[in-house]
Amino acid sequence: MTYNFSRRINELKPSAIREILKVTQDPTVISFAAGNPSVETFPAKEMAEIAADMFANRAGDALQYGVTEGYNPLRDVTAKRLREKYNVGTDNDDLIIVTGGQQGMDLTAKAFLNEDDVIICENPSFIGSLNCFRSYKAKLVGIPLEFDGMDMNVLEETLKQEKNVKLIYVIPTFQNPTGRVMSLEKRRQLLEIAKKYDVMIIEDNPYFELRYSGEYVPTIKSMDTEGRVIYVGSYSKILSPGIRLGFVCAPKEVISKLTVGKQVSDVHTNLFFQMLAAEFLTKYDLDAHIEKIRDIYRAKRDAMVKAMDANFGGMMTYEIPDGGLFMWGKLDDSLDGAELCKLSGKMGVVPVPGSSFLVNDKETSPCVRFNFSLPTFEQIDRGMELMGQALKEYTAK
Amino acid sequence: MTYNFSRRINELKPSAIREILKVTQDPTVISFAAGNPSVETFPAKEMAEIAADMFANRAGDALQYGVTEGYNPLRDVTAKRLREKYNVGTDNDDLIIVTGGQQGMDLTAKAFLNEDDVIICENPSFIGSLNCFRSYKAKLVGIPLEFDGMDMNVLEETLKQEKNVKLIYVIPTFQNPTGRVMSLEKRRQLLEIAKKYDVMIIEDNPYFELRYSGEYVPTIKSMDTEGRVIYVGSYSKILSPGIRLGFVCAPKEVISKLTVGKQVSDVHTNLFFQMLAAEFLTKYDLDAHIEKIRDIYRAKRDAMVKAMDANFGGMMTYEIPDGGLFMWGKLDDSLDGAELCKLSGKMGVVPVPGSSFLVNDKETSPCVRFNFSLPTFEQIDRGMELMGQALKEYTAK
Repeated sequence: MTYNFSRRINELKPSAIREILKVTQDPTVISFAAGNPSVETFPAKEMAEIAADMFANRAGDALQYGVTEGYNPLRDVTAKRLREKYNVGTDNDDLIIVTGGQQGMDLTAKAFLNEDDVIICENPSFIGSLNCFRSYKAKLVGIPLEFDGMDMNVLEETLKQEKNVKLIYVIPTFQNPTGRVMSLEKRRQLLEIAKKYDVMIIEDNPYFELRYSGEYVPTIKSMDTEGRVIYVGSYSKILSPGIRLGFVCAPKEVISKLTVGKQVSDVHTNLFFQMLAAEFLTKYDLDAHIEKIRDIYRAKRDAMVKAMDANFGGMMTYEIPDGGLFMWGKLDDSLDGAELCKLSGKMGVVPVPGSSFLVNDKETSPCVRFNFSLPTFEQIDRGMELMGQALKEYTAK
Repeated sequence: MTYNFSRRINELKPSAIREILKVTQDPTVISFAAGNPSVETFPAKEMAEIAADMFANRAGDALQYGVTEGYNPLRDVTAKRLREKYNVGTDNDDLIIVTGGQQGMDLTAKAFLNEDDVIICENPSFIGSLNCFRSYKAKLVGIPLEFDGMDMNVLEETLKQEKNVKLIYVIPTFQNPTGRVMSLEKRRQLLEIAKKYDVMIIEDNPYFELRYSGEYVPTIKSMDTEGRVIYVGSYSKILSPGIRLGFVCAPKEVISKLTVGKQVSDVHTNLFFQMLAAEFLTKYDLDAHIEKIRDIYRAKRDAMVKAMDANFGGMMTYEIPDGGLFMWGKLDDSLDGAELCKLSGKMGVVPVPGSSFLVNDKETSPCVRFNFSLPTFEQIDRGMELMGQALKEYTAK
């Protein structure tokens, strides 16, 4: 039988990373490809205690249908923490619990993008979001990402030229894939430009609490006085990703549209873990827990920097990120990160080629993304030795 | 600020039931409005044991990212049971785990419906699905639902007239809202007609195992030799709805498109409860568990029939369903179920007006849906007494 699929789905390709991750299920392969947190950062013991108590005393509520907006105590504790600690959210805002940050992007796209509308993205950017926007048949326009964030001149030129620009999508803090942080100055400029051209901003901020060095830069949302920023957050990197808990903080009118969109997508997010997370956040000290995660990842980042120093010998440059999960390496401009990855894969070590993150996925890139949160210290050392050999072989060609 | 939302979301209204359910949070109100299972049917004790063991021994895996298709042991045990017990699924089919049956509908719509494509639905039908199809800006065409299923003559006439019909959506067994079962003959006819006009069928089948009387009617999918039926199932009514676990069994090519669609929607379904469900289905006897649920709901259905007999006195007719969660009442054709519901609501008892389930939601309906799974026996008795009073008052006008 021939299936007559929708245009949107026919044009959508599975994520390249997804295909790479399948290769890395071979246990002898050292993977720097994932975006997974380290298992040791999950508060499993505390979760187990809460779950046991929930099953004993509140199982009926936790296993029953819930409301689409999310479990109220989780919404409240999330909104309170965002507002008090980070100045994110105002009396005009509301907060919805979503099935992972990815659903925040999906519902925002659903609520704003008509076919052929334009969404502006950092280039490179997170492939999951780019594919999500593609699934709405939006036109994606990439803006070169500088060390301190989007090139604001190109952004403004683009906004002058493109019609029907609805959204600007940014990951301002510890960007995926580059690990870069948008400067405070550029954050302010972005808000001004968005206002001037009447465009909404999606601030995707799953990594910002994973800071290992440098100084905190306020969120774009905290500087938004108009209700122009849709803030997408996640518990994936500070509690655990398998529970699929994220949230969106945005103007009430926007949240009410996201709620209508979520109702027809999955009705509500797993209620048991919403209740469990609410209790964890109330009973335990999340900030102390995050401090522990930072210590673990800081050490891993430092180990990766050291191993790169020892093995790359100028064949590849790299940026040392102040936080997040990724390091971004770059070959000479004439070279191709994908070729290097193919070669290193044969030698048993797998990063992700930079081209996977490009808005135009037919372009090549001299860059490569390395994840440091998931591999062990031993894997980082051995993996970078192998990367060094792959680099020698590739650059000698 | 004025927000420039997408056309699809601007035209989408929140479910009327959702608004009704908010009213019923008043504990003095007797609600027949929900579609919730009864808390006593959740296997909470067994789930608690599995969860404790999982936290002790497999927490790292259960809390980490998973693959989009779903946890393999859950896919396997689900597919095996469907195939062996119900002849659902062939070697050409595959199965994906989704975040509740609702997501099965959403991903199918995403994979097949371009804007203005036609989807044919039973009229009345499940509002969550209708709204989902509306969110893709599809054209919904309703086919009158007879006691034994869709009117096949009207269906064929419609297929002759409408262009770009992509999907026919049916809930053939214990339909929501009517509780009706499509006859075997009509199931066969539906397959033939779908073949003749080259249209796919969505068989939404969340209730079929909740049979309290009468004889099993084979699923449409079990008679599908071509790969034309997309079968959407759910664990919401046989395990619990708060865990958001459903599944889609369909031709491999279709499942691969749903997978690409799901990846950009929520990456994967809560992995902890996928693992927990897989273990429940392997360790415990689901069929025996379903037998217990049937006994509970059969008694509730019978209690509701008895209470209607005692209180409705010919002012409202009703069908006795062989399964599912709902009874469908009907006033004289000249009357309006919504008016009755308004009146009964003031008296403290809340069903759902039939008009909520119509494809054209501007029409009125003389029908009313009553849920019998959630209320207690006392609530059924007292609620139907009040309904009887409301009926007297309304029909005396």
